[in-house]
Amino acid sequence: MEAMKIDLLIHSASQVCVVPGHDGPQRGGRLGDLGIIENGAVAVADGRILETGPSADLRARYTAETTIDAHGRCLTPGFVDPHTHLPWAGDRAHEFEMRLGGATYMEIMAAGGGIMSTVYQTRAASLEQLVVQNLPRLARMLAHGTTSAEAKTGYGLEKAAELKQLDAIWQLNQRQPIELAATFLPAHAVPEEWSGRTDDYVQHIITELLPAGADWMRRRQTTLFCDVFCEAGVFDVAQTRRIFTRAAELGCRLKVHADEFEGLGGTKLAVELGAVSADHLVKTPDADIAALGQGNTVAVGLPGTPFGLGHSEYTPAKAILAAGGALALATDLNPGTTWCESMQMVMALACRYMGLTQAQALAAATLNSAHAIGRGDEIGSLEPGKQADILILDVADYRQLGYRYGTNLVKMVIKQGSVVSKQ
Amino acid sequence: MEAMKIDLLIHSASQVCVVPGHDGPQRGGRLGDLGIIENGAVAVADGRILETGPSADLRARYTAETTIDAHGRCLTPGFVDPHTHLPWAGDRAHEFEMRLGGATYMEIMAAGGGIMSTVYQTRAASLEQLVVQNLPRLARMLAHGTTSAEAKTGYGLEKAAELKQLDAIWQLNQRQPIELAATFLPAHAVPEEWSGRTDDYVQHIITELLPAGADWMRRRQTTLFCDVFCEAGVFDVAQTRRIFTRAAELGCRLKVHADEFEGLGGTKLAVELGAVSADHLVKTPDADIAALGQGNTVAVGLPGTPFGLGHSEYTPAKAILAAGGALALATDLNPGTTWCESMQMVMALACRYMGLTQAQALAAATLNSAHAIGRGDEIGSLEPGKQADILILDVADYRQLGYRYGTNLVKMVIKQGSVVSKQ
Repeated sequence: MEAMKIDLLIHSASQVCVVPGHDGPQRGGRLGDLGIIENGAVAVADGRILETGPSADLRARYTAETTIDAHGRCLTPGFVDPHTHLPWAGDRAHEFEMRLGGATYMEIMAAGGGIMSTVYQTRAASLEQLVVQNLPRLARMLAHGTTSAEAKTGYGLEKAAELKQLDAIWQLNQRQPIELAATFLPAHAVPEEWSGRTDDYVQHIITELLPAGADWMRRRQTTLFCDVFCEAGVFDVAQTRRIFTRAAELGCRLKVHADEFEGLGGTKLAVELGAVSADHLVKTPDADIAALGQGNTVAVGLPGTPFGLGHSEYTPAKAILAAGGALALATDLNPGTTWCESMQMVMALACRYMGLTQAQALAAATLNSAHAIGRGDEIGSLEPGKQADILILDVADYRQLGYRYGTNLVKMVIKQGSVVSKQ
Repeated sequence: MEAMKIDLLIHSASQVCVVPGHDGPQRGGRLGDLGIIENGAVAVADGRILETGPSADLRARYTAETTIDAHGRCLTPGFVDPHTHLPWAGDRAHEFEMRLGGATYMEIMAAGGGIMSTVYQTRAASLEQLVVQNLPRLARMLAHGTTSAEAKTGYGLEKAAELKQLDAIWQLNQRQPIELAATFLPAHAVPEEWSGRTDDYVQHIITELLPAGADWMRRRQTTLFCDVFCEAGVFDVAQTRRIFTRAAELGCRLKVHADEFEGLGGTKLAVELGAVSADHLVKTPDADIAALGQGNTVAVGLPGTPFGLGHSEYTPAKAILAAGGALALATDLNPGTTWCESMQMVMALACRYMGLTQAQALAAATLNSAHAIGRGDEIGSLEPGKQADILILDVADYRQLGYRYGTNLVKMVIKQGSVVSKQ
């Protein structure tokens, strides 16, 4: 039998972590099934996974344009980061310093800090400046193993700036290897111009901003998520429902920021409306956790956020899993609360503060996070037919992920069959 | 006036953080004085800092063999990591997984886990294996900006293996750029062979191991620290005093592991005996904090350790500073509680959990940590005459350190005037 010619064969890996999804995310007690093949190989053709299996077997059956010997290394799916606040302009290192120096929230606001600081910087940036400032952040994400991510608006909070953020996401998608799913979040905060008139701003979102976002989506012939920061003092559940109802009518899929500081019922609403994900989920009420077990909304834990703020309470992962929920992980990368591009760091936090094992954290950061951006059928695992988004780790055992932290264990990143980053 | 010819000129840096020490560490409220020169330059000759100053001034007065344009970048002293447990063999990722899976301490011990697991792996390794396994860890440290560090024994716990660890430190010193200060720690734990006979093991240390360590020190014509794990259930204060008294007679300088789980008085003892540093200091009693303010012993916070264990209590930095103490930071890099090579990550933890500002964390990780290994006159700042151990950061402002975390903000590492790492 003659060997079949393919594009890429990665062989002799100490472990190939397939992270099998079958027909959905790994829910509840199933989370952490890595489907490990020892001394394994991955065959790639046309940018997709053709087959995984024992190294000797695949080496006998395929010859490849490019062959990579992964002896002593572990292969995993590329990380999917389903919640970032890219793209933004500027930084808030000075505000962080003020906070550490003992400044109160009001003092920081008076000094021009807080979310509006990033809003003004993002509004002031040109589209090209916004793109150029965010390319190095994406390069860091890629070097640390993220091959697909979500990016969102929400630092514009006015029509032109929100659309500029969408255009920046579009351009960033073309100008580097990470695939970005776009989310529209004019309901990130009530901007100063609308201060004290939240209902009016909600109406403005519904009549002006959402149609503009939907128009952008149609022109770009892409998909668009709509997200709302459903939180005490920001948007309540009734306002969130109004925005989501209109967004769904306009063809958007839904995501929600819920329960970061108080449990208002945003998670239950998300499940009711069939949202793709509900994110943060620190103060989630029991009834909302139970709802996650019944519905198809993926719970996204963002442990970088409480860590970034020095808080001690994290997403109740064990309760969510006990209820049969699907749990994913994301960075929440943003300049205010947590500037960390690395999903490896997020996994290390999830092991220590959410009680996940390394295997659970890895499945949550790949297969389940792919489902959290509605792309679980395309990415997030090394199953045949999926995109060949593959990490070659600098270690032989996946259990080094989460155990070691603060550095980069990714040796090589492969996106759709091509090597796009090497350390 | 003709320009003077020198080896290296780094110019046009947005900030040069000198971290002036004058005649000692930055104590108490003085911690965080960075002596920043904006649009600055550093002149280097014969591997040492010749001068720092305004870029225009130094460019007019010097021509250099090698010139580096640091436009948009910040320069700092190389990080000094004064507490690691290098060199060791193997890892304990499986033990970490068991712990996350809910295994008790006793179950982990029964499965062959705990410190003795690393002791057996380290005893079984040949000298060359021990060296080769630890080179990549040092390479990661270097890439993240550590230019000098401490390394110690304590995974041998018997004469031959303790001396093998010292020889490994010696060889590691020759085979990569980071300078290592050696510490002798046969009093890291009571090995299984001496279980229940702690006093006998202490006597064995005094009569057999310390003389062997001192003999090694004389043969190598180097300095050697002696350290004791002074902790409830391990070595008490009286045993620690006996070991230290003999070590000092033999010419060793002193360091101590104290107050990690209980405050026994090890810190006060360290100050009394003029130890160079007292490390961990989580449960340090008030009287011991006051002693730090009076003596010359540097307090070394190791925030990676409580973080690694998922604990919530950290070194009381503010109380130590309020008492006028000198505070340094270190990784505690080890396979059991915290495997993180990055001093940047340690600074990020210190900002969030010890309440340090970024400037305080930077001074604690450079000048003060140099004093914590007795080398404050040679390294840890960019003052004239000191070794030219310099970091070029990928950011314009030092305040990005600590604020951003989980990635590597170091662009280039210069050791004794030579570029030794680039990202």
